[in-house]
Amino acid sequence: MFFSLTPCLRLLTGRRCLLYCRSIVSENSDRRAAVDNAVSAFRSICGEDGISLGEAVREQHGKDESVHRCCPPDVVVFPRCVEEVSALAKVCHQHRLPIIPFGTGTGLEGGVGAVKGGVCFSLRNMDQVLDLHPEDFDVTVEPGVTRKALNTYLRDTGLWFPVDPGADASLCGMAATSASGTNAVRYGTMRENVVNLEVVLADGSIIHTAGKGRRPRKTSAGYNLTNLFVGSEGTLGIITKTTLRLYGIPEAMVSAVCSFPSVQEAVDSTVQILQAGVPIARIEFLDDVMIDACNRFSSLSYSVSPTLFLEFHGSEQSLEEQVSTTEDITQSNGGSDFQWARDAETRSRLWKARHDAWYAALALRPGCKAYATDVCVPLSRLPQIIVETKEDLIESRLTGPIAGHVGDGNFHCLMVVDPSDPDELHRVHLFTERLARRALAMDGTCTGEHGVGLGKQALLREEMGPLSIQVMQGLKDALDPLNLMNPGKILQQVEL
Amino acid sequence: MFFSLTPCLRLLTGRRCLLYCRSIVSENSDRRAAVDNAVSAFRSICGEDGISLGEAVREQHGKDESVHRCCPPDVVVFPRCVEEVSALAKVCHQHRLPIIPFGTGTGLEGGVGAVKGGVCFSLRNMDQVLDLHPEDFDVTVEPGVTRKALNTYLRDTGLWFPVDPGADASLCGMAATSASGTNAVRYGTMRENVVNLEVVLADGSIIHTAGKGRRPRKTSAGYNLTNLFVGSEGTLGIITKTTLRLYGIPEAMVSAVCSFPSVQEAVDSTVQILQAGVPIARIEFLDDVMIDACNRFSSLSYSVSPTLFLEFHGSEQSLEEQVSTTEDITQSNGGSDFQWARDAETRSRLWKARHDAWYAALALRPGCKAYATDVCVPLSRLPQIIVETKEDLIESRLTGPIAGHVGDGNFHCLMVVDPSDPDELHRVHLFTERLARRALAMDGTCTGEHGVGLGKQALLREEMGPLSIQVMQGLKDALDPLNLMNPGKILQQVEL
Repeated sequence: MFFSLTPCLRLLTGRRCLLYCRSIVSENSDRRAAVDNAVSAFRSICGEDGISLGEAVREQHGKDESVHRCCPPDVVVFPRCVEEVSALAKVCHQHRLPIIPFGTGTGLEGGVGAVKGGVCFSLRNMDQVLDLHPEDFDVTVEPGVTRKALNTYLRDTGLWFPVDPGADASLCGMAATSASGTNAVRYGTMRENVVNLEVVLADGSIIHTAGKGRRPRKTSAGYNLTNLFVGSEGTLGIITKTTLRLYGIPEAMVSAVCSFPSVQEAVDSTVQILQAGVPIARIEFLDDVMIDACNRFSSLSYSVSPTLFLEFHGSEQSLEEQVSTTEDITQSNGGSDFQWARDAETRSRLWKARHDAWYAALALRPGCKAYATDVCVPLSRLPQIIVETKEDLIESRLTGPIAGHVGDGNFHCLMVVDPSDPDELHRVHLFTERLARRALAMDGTCTGEHGVGLGKQALLREEMGPLSIQVMQGLKDALDPLNLMNPGKILQQVEL
Repeated sequence: MFFSLTPCLRLLTGRRCLLYCRSIVSENSDRRAAVDNAVSAFRSICGEDGISLGEAVREQHGKDESVHRCCPPDVVVFPRCVEEVSALAKVCHQHRLPIIPFGTGTGLEGGVGAVKGGVCFSLRNMDQVLDLHPEDFDVTVEPGVTRKALNTYLRDTGLWFPVDPGADASLCGMAATSASGTNAVRYGTMRENVVNLEVVLADGSIIHTAGKGRRPRKTSAGYNLTNLFVGSEGTLGIITKTTLRLYGIPEAMVSAVCSFPSVQEAVDSTVQILQAGVPIARIEFLDDVMIDACNRFSSLSYSVSPTLFLEFHGSEQSLEEQVSTTEDITQSNGGSDFQWARDAETRSRLWKARHDAWYAALALRPGCKAYATDVCVPLSRLPQIIVETKEDLIESRLTGPIAGHVGDGNFHCLMVVDPSDPDELHRVHLFTERLARRALAMDGTCTGEHGVGLGKQALLREEMGPLSIQVMQGLKDALDPLNLMNPGKILQQVEL
C-alpha cells in the first residue's frame, strides 16, 4: 500500500515522517545497536578524524538548503578515497544501515535528510581534480570538487564547465540530482554533460558506468548506466567520481535586459529567438513581482513588468549579430528598454537583479524562509501556467515572485514563508501541489531540475503513472535490494 | 558461465550461433509448437494480412544491412497500433516466444536476427507523425516513420530533425540503437534528442518513459527511463512512439573541404575548431585510401591525403566568420586546397566524395560485401589509433578505407570483404577485434553508434568490466525476467 508524505507540511511543522521499508534496520533501538557495532569498523577504515557522532555535525548533515526539516543521521563518516567509501559501504551493508551521500548540502528537495537514520557519507575530503584532458574537452573530479572550484582550476586552460545551478554545488552532487540552471538552454543539463561515473553500490562494489577510465564523447555500448545514475539522488549508489564534458571559454559575452507588456510577449520572443537559431547562452524570465523586489533590494529602476535577462556567448562579430537579431525580435513583440552591455562590470550590473533574486525575494518579508518550487512545461504553455499561478498566489494570499529558465520552460516561485504560521504553511503546501498538477496537466513535469527528494514522491507517481513507477521500483530493487541507499527518497516506501 | 560468440566469423561463414538461455522456448520442436498455438491468436489480433509465415518475408526480416548472417524469425507480425503490439506481446509472453522488434532493417550489428527464432514485430504499418508542436520544438512519431519522412513532413514548418546516421532509418529504431552520425558534433545523438518514449514491455504492458504525453525540455523526475531504453536495442521493450526535439532550419549552410599532410594535422585542426567555439555542424574525416576510392568512383580529383569535409549552419553573416576562422586554423596546421561553397548544388558536389564513400569502398572490389567497424576514442587519441589501424590493415592484407565523425572521435573502417574466402574472413575478424581493443586501450569504446548487437558482446564485457555487466544484466532481468525481448543481443547468455 502506498501513502502520501505531504512533506511540505510535515517537514515544515516538524511532524515525524512515517516511513516503512522492508530491509533496513528500521527500529530505532535496533538501529542504534547496529550503529554502535559499526562505529569501530568505521574508525578502523577512516581513522578517528574520519567519523563524527557529535550532535552539531549530525544536525549539519541532516538538512540541505530547502525548508525540509532536519533529519540528522546517526553518524557522519568522512572517507578520503573510493576504497574507503567502498569499505564503509560494506560495513553498512553488513549491518543493514542506511547510507546517505552528502556533497555540499545545497540541494532543494531534502535529499540528504536521514529519514531512516543511518550513516551520512560526507565526501568533502575527496576534493581532487583528476585527469584533465584539455585537448579532449574532458575532466574527472572527485565529489568534494564544486563547480566554482573546477572553473577556478580550469582558469588558464581556455576551458570551462558551464552547468550553473546558482549554488556552488558539488559536481558529483549535481550529477546525482540532474542539476541544470541558467546555461542549460545552450550547454544542456548534467544529463548531457556527464561522460562517466564511478559509483559505489549499496554492497560496496565499485562500478564505472561507462567502463573504468573511459571517456569517448559518445557511445552506444550497452545500457546507458551513466544516465541511470544521473538524477538518481543517491538512491542507487554513491557517486565517487564524475567525468565531465568541458567547453572552450567564449571569446566574448554580451548581457542584455528587456521588458515586456505581458508574459505572452516575453515567451513569444523566447520561442522566436530559439527558432531563429540564435545560440543564446542564458535567457531568464523574472515576473513583475520579482522585478519589483529586485528594484527595492538593489536600488534598481527596472520597469515593473515581465522581463527577460539574456546572455550571449561567441566571437565579437557573431555577438553583434546575435544581439541585433534578438533586439529585433523583442521589439516586434512589444519589448522595450532593451539594454545591453559587453564589459564585465556593466554586464554584472545589468544582471544584478537576476543574480540577487533569491535574496530580494527573502527581503520582501524579513525573518521568513524561502522555498523554491520547480516545474517545467513545454514553452508554449508557459504564459498560461504563469498567469494562472500568479492568480493562484493572490487568491492564496502568498508571496512567490517568479524566476524562470524560460528557454527550457522551467520556472520557480520563490515562496517566502513564515515558518511559525501553520495556516500559511498549509496554504503553501496546497499551492505547490496545485502548481505541480497544473504543470502535469500541460504535458510538463513536477520537477525540472531540483529532483524529487522528499517533497514530490506522490507527484512523481501522478506524473509517471503506476507502470512506469513499477519499472523504477524494479530498477531500484535490482541495484539496492535491501533498500539501504538514501531510503525514503524518489520512490515511496511500501508498507509491509 | 559466459562464452564468446566471435560472431563475425560465425555469422559470415554461416555457422549456427550456440545460444543458451533460461526461459524462452529454446528447443526448436517446442518452439514450433508454441508458434503454431500462437498463430491463431496473432491472426485474431491483427487480421489475416497482419501476419506472415512465408519464407521470403521471414528471411527479409531476419537480417539487417550488416554482414551478419540471416536468422529468420518463425513468424512476422504487422501490428497497426500500440494496442495490437501489446496484445501480440501478451500472446508471446504466454507462450514464452522471443519478440524481435523490426523498424527498417538498416542496422549494422545484426540486431534484428532471430537467433532464438520467435516473433518479429515489423512496425512499418505504424507510420504516423503525431502531435507536432512547432512552438515547442517537439514532435511524436510512430516507429514506421523514418528520418527522411519526418523531415519531408516538417518541410513547411521551418523546423527539422538533424540526427543523420546516413541510412533512412526508422526514428524509433534510431532511438533503440542510440544512433547518431554526421550531425552529432553540433546537435547531439539520439540520447540528447529523445524526450519521451512509449514502450511495450515483454509482458505486454505499455509504459511511457517520461510519463504519458509529457514533453518538457528537461526533467529531473525520477530515474531516467528514457535513456535506459535509448540504446537498449530491443532487449528491454518495443518502442512504439518517440517524442523528439526539433531545431530551427538554419538560415544558410556552407560546405567546405580541406586536405592535410597527415592525420595528426587534420585532428589538430578539429580540436582547435571546437576550442575556438566554431559551432560546426559536421566535420568528417576521410583517409587517403578512402579519398582515392572516392576519386575513382566519382571521377573526382581530390588530393590523395587525409581530408576533412566540413559543414557550417547559421546566418549568412555568422557563416562568413565560421568559414574564415576555420580556414585560418586549417592553414596553420598545413591544410591546403581549402574549398568552400554556399549554393546547394556546389555544396552537394563538394561533399559528393563523403556521401558516396560506402559505394566507393564497395567499388574497390566488385562482388565483395562491406562491413563497417565502429569505434570511438577521445579526440587526442585519433591520430595514433588511425595510424596504427592503417598499418594493421596493410599487415593483415585487408581493404578498409577509413571515414570518421572526427568531431566526436568516432570512425569506421569500411571493410570490403570477399564472403567466399574463409581466410580473409578470419583475418577481418581478428583485425576488428584488435581495432576494438586498441580503442579500449585508449579510453574509448568498441561502439560509438552502431550498438553491440550480435557482434560485440565479448568486447562490451571487456569495455565495461564484470561488475557493470552484472548491473546491466540485473536491469535486463528486472525488466524482462523471461528473456523474451530480442534474446542474444547486447548481453551474452548464461549457460545453464
